[in-house]
Amino acid sequence: MKNNQFAIVPTDSETAIAELTKIHFITPDMDALTTVPAVYQALLAKSLPEVHTASGLTHKFNNIMATSQHTLSEWLADATIVNNQVFYNVGLQLLGFLPGQDFELADPLLAMRDIHLPMVGDSAFDREALYYAWYLLLNTRGNNGQTLIESLTTRGYFVPFYQLPNDQKPLFFNGKAQAVFDTNALIRDVVYVEAPLDTDHDGQRDLLKVEILRPAETETGLKVPVLYTASPYNQGINDQAGDAQMHNVDVPLTAKEPDENTYADVEFQPTTAQLPAARTATTTTDTAEETFSREKSYTLNDYFLARGFAVVYAAGIGSIDSDGLAPTGDVDETTSTVAIIEWLTGKRQAFTNRDGNIAIKAWWCNGAVAMTGRSYLGTLATAAATTGVAGLKTIISEAAISSWYDYYRDNGLVVAPDTFQGEDTDVLAAEVFSRSLKAGDAHQIQPAFDQKLAELTADQDRASGNYNRFWDERNYLKNVDKIKADIIMVHGLNDWNVKPRNVANLWDKLQAVPVTKKLILHQGQHIYINNLQSLDFTDMMNLWLSHKLYGLDNHAETLLPNVLVQDNTQAQTWHGYDNWWQDTTDALDFKVQYKELVPADHTVDQRAAHFTDKLPDKLFDHYKHHLDSWQRDLLQEDKLNPLYDHRLLFKSWQAPEDQLLVGIPHVAGSVAVNKNFGMLSFMLIDFGAARRLTVSPQILAAKALDLGYHWREDDLKDFKLAGETPFKMITKGHLNLQNRHHPWHAEAIQPNVFYDFSVDLQPLFHHLLKGHQLGLVIYATDMKMTIRGNQDLQYSLNLNDIRLHVPMKKITD
Amino acid sequence: MKNNQFAIVPTDSETAIAELTKIHFITPDMDALTTVPAVYQALLAKSLPEVHTASGLTHKFNNIMATSQHTLSEWLADATIVNNQVFYNVGLQLLGFLPGQDFELADPLLAMRDIHLPMVGDSAFDREALYYAWYLLLNTRGNNGQTLIESLTTRGYFVPFYQLPNDQKPLFFNGKAQAVFDTNALIRDVVYVEAPLDTDHDGQRDLLKVEILRPAETETGLKVPVLYTASPYNQGINDQAGDAQMHNVDVPLTAKEPDENTYADVEFQPTTAQLPAARTATTTTDTAEETFSREKSYTLNDYFLARGFAVVYAAGIGSIDSDGLAPTGDVDETTSTVAIIEWLTGKRQAFTNRDGNIAIKAWWCNGAVAMTGRSYLGTLATAAATTGVAGLKTIISEAAISSWYDYYRDNGLVVAPDTFQGEDTDVLAAEVFSRSLKAGDAHQIQPAFDQKLAELTADQDRASGNYNRFWDERNYLKNVDKIKADIIMVHGLNDWNVKPRNVANLWDKLQAVPVTKKLILHQGQHIYINNLQSLDFTDMMNLWLSHKLYGLDNHAETLLPNVLVQDNTQAQTWHGYDNWWQDTTDALDFKVQYKELVPADHTVDQRAAHFTDKLPDKLFDHYKHHLDSWQRDLLQEDKLNPLYDHRLLFKSWQAPEDQLLVGIPHVAGSVAVNKNFGMLSFMLIDFGAARRLTVSPQILAAKALDLGYHWREDDLKDFKLAGETPFKMITKGHLNLQNRHHPWHAEAIQPNVFYDFSVDLQPLFHHLLKGHQLGLVIYATDMKMTIRGNQDLQYSLNLNDIRLHVPMKKITD
Repeated sequence: MKNNQFAIVPTDSETAIAELTKIHFITPDMDALTTVPAVYQALLAKSLPEVHTASGLTHKFNNIMATSQHTLSEWLADATIVNNQVFYNVGLQLLGFLPGQDFELADPLLAMRDIHLPMVGDSAFDREALYYAWYLLLNTRGNNGQTLIESLTTRGYFVPFYQLPNDQKPLFFNGKAQAVFDTNALIRDVVYVEAPLDTDHDGQRDLLKVEILRPAETETGLKVPVLYTASPYNQGINDQAGDAQMHNVDVPLTAKEPDENTYADVEFQPTTAQLPAARTATTTTDTAEETFSREKSYTLNDYFLARGFAVVYAAGIGSIDSDGLAPTGDVDETTSTVAIIEWLTGKRQAFTNRDGNIAIKAWWCNGAVAMTGRSYLGTLATAAATTGVAGLKTIISEAAISSWYDYYRDNGLVVAPDTFQGEDTDVLAAEVFSRSLKAGDAHQIQPAFDQKLAELTADQDRASGNYNRFWDERNYLKNVDKIKADIIMVHGLNDWNVKPRNVANLWDKLQAVPVTKKLILHQGQHIYINNLQSLDFTDMMNLWLSHKLYGLDNHAETLLPNVLVQDNTQAQTWHGYDNWWQDTTDALDFKVQYKELVPADHTVDQRAAHFTDKLPDKLFDHYKHHLDSWQRDLLQEDKLNPLYDHRLLFKSWQAPEDQLLVGIPHVAGSVAVNKNFGMLSFMLIDFGAARRLTVSPQILAAKALDLGYHWREDDLKDFKLAGETPFKMITKGHLNLQNRHHPWHAEAIQPNVFYDFSVDLQPLFHHLLKGHQLGLVIYATDMKMTIRGNQDLQYSLNLNDIRLHVPMKKITD
Repeated sequence: MKNNQFAIVPTDSETAIAELTKIHFITPDMDALTTVPAVYQALLAKSLPEVHTASGLTHKFNNIMATSQHTLSEWLADATIVNNQVFYNVGLQLLGFLPGQDFELADPLLAMRDIHLPMVGDSAFDREALYYAWYLLLNTRGNNGQTLIESLTTRGYFVPFYQLPNDQKPLFFNGKAQAVFDTNALIRDVVYVEAPLDTDHDGQRDLLKVEILRPAETETGLKVPVLYTASPYNQGINDQAGDAQMHNVDVPLTAKEPDENTYADVEFQPTTAQLPAARTATTTTDTAEETFSREKSYTLNDYFLARGFAVVYAAGIGSIDSDGLAPTGDVDETTSTVAIIEWLTGKRQAFTNRDGNIAIKAWWCNGAVAMTGRSYLGTLATAAATTGVAGLKTIISEAAISSWYDYYRDNGLVVAPDTFQGEDTDVLAAEVFSRSLKAGDAHQIQPAFDQKLAELTADQDRASGNYNRFWDERNYLKNVDKIKADIIMVHGLNDWNVKPRNVANLWDKLQAVPVTKKLILHQGQHIYINNLQSLDFTDMMNLWLSHKLYGLDNHAETLLPNVLVQDNTQAQTWHGYDNWWQDTTDALDFKVQYKELVPADHTVDQRAAHFTDKLPDKLFDHYKHHLDSWQRDLLQEDKLNPLYDHRLLFKSWQAPEDQLLVGIPHVAGSVAVNKNFGMLSFMLIDFGAARRLTVSPQILAAKALDLGYHWREDDLKDFKLAGETPFKMITKGHLNLQNRHHPWHAEAIQPNVFYDFSVDLQPLFHHLLKGHQLGLVIYATDMKMTIRGNQDLQYSLNLNDIRLHVPMKKITD
């Protein structure tokens, strides 16, 4: 294991001792202990909450080696001093590392350094130094991806603290809220928030079901902040309705009617609809009348439920037990999302039931809200943030969409999220319209939804693929300047579902906005990262939310790197950066020569190269059902490879040194096609035999992470290096040749005439190893993402014109 | 979904009403209700524990359709009678089925039949009939794989029952214990049982750590039975030590020294070692002094913790916090396993800590014990049962080994469990010797263990592969006649880790033993089956254990089929049988003709066929790393297939009708090899294009099964039909040519001389579809299982001599 830990708050010795006293590691009875080893023994005893007797402790101490020859019991019997060798030998074992395998008892300090564990320099400890070392050890992460204090938490250390009076809660230790709240006592309420919407046009404002989990302490006056996850999936999804809506992608590309559109022609202008009057409450109560047994939860939220935060889930308009209709990503959906925050902060009303007479306030809330969640959930957090709604202090948006056009389209082409060929906004809307799962409700609402769905299908306009008013409404980037919430973005560099452009554009736009923003880029696909062994993501979020929602002064803003990136060349390695590509001046610039990428200043003179898009029917059919084999063949250099004549592949010389490819690669050139329409697709490839990280973290230990004490559990995972592979696709891009200048503007093209093109690929943060080669593949149909007509389209590219630009950072460390 | 439900106890109307009253569905206030619809409404209201107000109920009723035109609310407003159309329309929705997708509101009875849900015949219900129908509905399984009463349990229905006095606990409903025990209040104790062993020869009897979870009600006098899982993995495993012990399998086969062994020469005779005196307790207590936070649990055990059963885990000798050394599968390991049962039943002492002075009894135990668990865990349950230990009422042994020779060897050959090439008893011993994970303990014990490990490595004798005294000690089949516990066996027909012979031999031997035995054969590999959507395995086990451990008279023995088998040709289909092959008289008998399997009465005259075992180095190396590709090529008929000349393949004509291949296929023939040693391997193949079940169940809904209320959760899974495949391996077998008569007796063979052989393959229960063909493959090296010397061995088989015999049952339904 290599530890990557950012959330340790630098703490002076005096504070450390005060904090140890607060969590009862230092107790008054220890004043009577006269030697440092005796104090050490007392600390060790408290770290074993399972046993309470001398015999039990002795046995546990027998299990631990203090030196290469003596057990901890033996050593304690004779010890006169505590040195750092013994301290870290024992410490490493407390952290779950095994002598002989993970470290050598002869040199624990070497292992502390190798595993990147923090330590103090003293070779022998006085009492104060021992306390300080112990404090640091409690805050050090072990082999199971938890700090020692977290590990003790899961073993019941904080159970006696459940009884603390409210004025001592929450309890912070090293700047992070601790699990001193009894999750068995959580209160679960359902309320119905009245949104300023009537999306189902029934003459009544839409009521939105909200599921609340809050600590029992709120009943006796504790005010707590809220982690709010807006998840359209949370009340259930109608897979069958989504499947029925799925689009056939084996359809031909066709010529678009040329237009004279400018952005102004497609700009969305919000309209203000007539809104029914708000309901009038006949009475008010503090007590909900409906509850629930099990919400669909995010484990990060579960973790915070043990630590003094309430968690709120809402599925929004169109979901079970709520009103309304939700056409994916529209303004109403954002309004519905924000309405919950407005209720939490006292600016909107909610009711105990759907008859709407008994009002209930979020009287238990301290007015500070964060939003969490991944994918559609993170998207709605982003959407809410772009309204600037008051009370939303921060969002942690993971794998979030920043513009729905960037999710379902690309440069005038229909481009599906990976593994979801044929999906579109209407498919997603049908899937999350969970009111359809309640037959009684569906009986009356389904016709209205079906009509809305038909509008959605028409407006998303798969036929053209153009950016239009519909997509402009669903572009949150337009409102980034309104963001007031501080923001943490998390995204996978291998996320081909929500492609990296989504986070890159948001990050770039945020540079000009006066909020704190942090970015974490991992090597996963479309995943959560709160259960990795090697990164203290959860602790970072604890630091962040303790600061943002409880106002704790814990240096969260400076401790978290601005941009934290997982290295793609080795396991468990993360680096902090100031920015992504915004401060980059270097670049790699290539032109092509025959089948090579060569420096842009080379002189080349050559003819056009050609490829045909159409595949033999049988091969096409095979690839349809074996997309990975299509992708593998596409990148293979072997002339016998069946795709050899169906794409152009250019390879650079070997990289003379390690390089960081950062930001937005750009490809330009000129192309002719034998019809009056066409598309190009592009991939950048890292060629070079290497063991590469799996794109999904592997389970290291199932259910190994208790998120509190006898509370919900998560699997411990991490990315591992897989077997050697010859290459890896590192980014891609797509272009409809009729949209060479704007996604909203379709131009005519003539058959067999060369046209210039210029296209941004999806952004990169890629470590190219010395000796590896960069590859550029130019092709047309993307079996995984574009429509696939398998048409007789023949493309010619003027090799003299092709340019590839890749921003680059030198690797300095 | 198709429901396969066996654990519904036939119940008369009077009893049903009494049981409904006991669980408060029928309450005295309902006497005042004058109409059947009013009674129905009251029952419905009680099935919605989340809401308590009229408004809340109305909304929930609005969500349900009673007829194709009216919601339940609307219908209730006017209803004068309750007919079965409305009852099952509503019932299906309560069970999670969706109108329009899973059934039609116009004909719910059709769906009830199609999904195999039980129903009552009445077209209109009087009050008594309504109660009976409701009772049956509560016991009917829904779309989430839970009965309605289970679904209500997970939504808090039984929370008020936590307060019932002990004399009303456990609470049985329809013959099964219900979740009326608060899992938040479970008591967790650690005790140390003193085993009649001194396996580490330290002059003291081995103490064994036991983790106990028991209901809080035991503190106030309730005596409960125990589900005991003996799991050597439960205190942790030392992967690295296991890996270090792993054997290289790329070694040549060699000639064995011929011997004159009979079984008597290798028979294991137990010896009685001198045993240190038992410890003398200085005092006795009822209170444990050590606890634990999270055991490694089996979800089936977790389920029973909510229902009035205690659960006990012990990792046995050689595990963390226990004494001793455990050489895989030996007699001491069985003694260690049984010692826990002896303590639970008052016949052996335990202590609160390892100093051994304070004795503690299992005073909370009613004396009835069951053992549970899969693989090694199920193996130890089998081992314990073969001692006939008193108090062990039943075992549920899943994927259990019945003889370790059948796990690591076959007919004189080293044959690895699938996916564990190179593993052997010493590898497993090193892995589960978890004392090595506690450095202090390892410091003193590791040398003794290393010596034991060296003995194990020698005694298991990979060099010969013969059955010897070592393996005879590890053959539980020898003691089947001592079994007194009733037994449920569960095994995967695609389990190539613990191969089906293990369960088949046990089942066969048990036929003569006067205990109740049940067998469940599923289509999975090495898995648990307690979370399948389509089979009520958990309910069956509840029925079984309520009967066996609480003595409830619930017809468990007759309701559970003797042999329950999952069909391999369609999803979610299970059939009951009286036996496996024991009552079978039919068979398919083949000889071969060129490349065909033909009826055994055909006249054939042909020469020998040959194959060479050696592969080109590069191909061999490729297959080593791509075992599935080896297996695919082996079965492919294509002449270009690289394995074409490295095996013989014979195919039958198309099956004229569906056939059940059951029991033990047998291959005989004569073979010559060009050396004085050799091996043969065999596979039977089902040839025929078909969609076949995946061998691992797929997740249908993550964490969807709460095992109690706010308790631990399991994923809902089931097997699904995957894409079409041309063939499937259905069984295999292996033979060292020097062990043609006995695994314990090595005979000399001469190069190029023909020898008769005769070998049993692993047993089958396979549904061969009409039109499919049976295939027999004869080859030598099994890349997945045997040693792989890639030697220049050439095999000749006299085609005239080859015979294949497959027992068969006619399909009658």
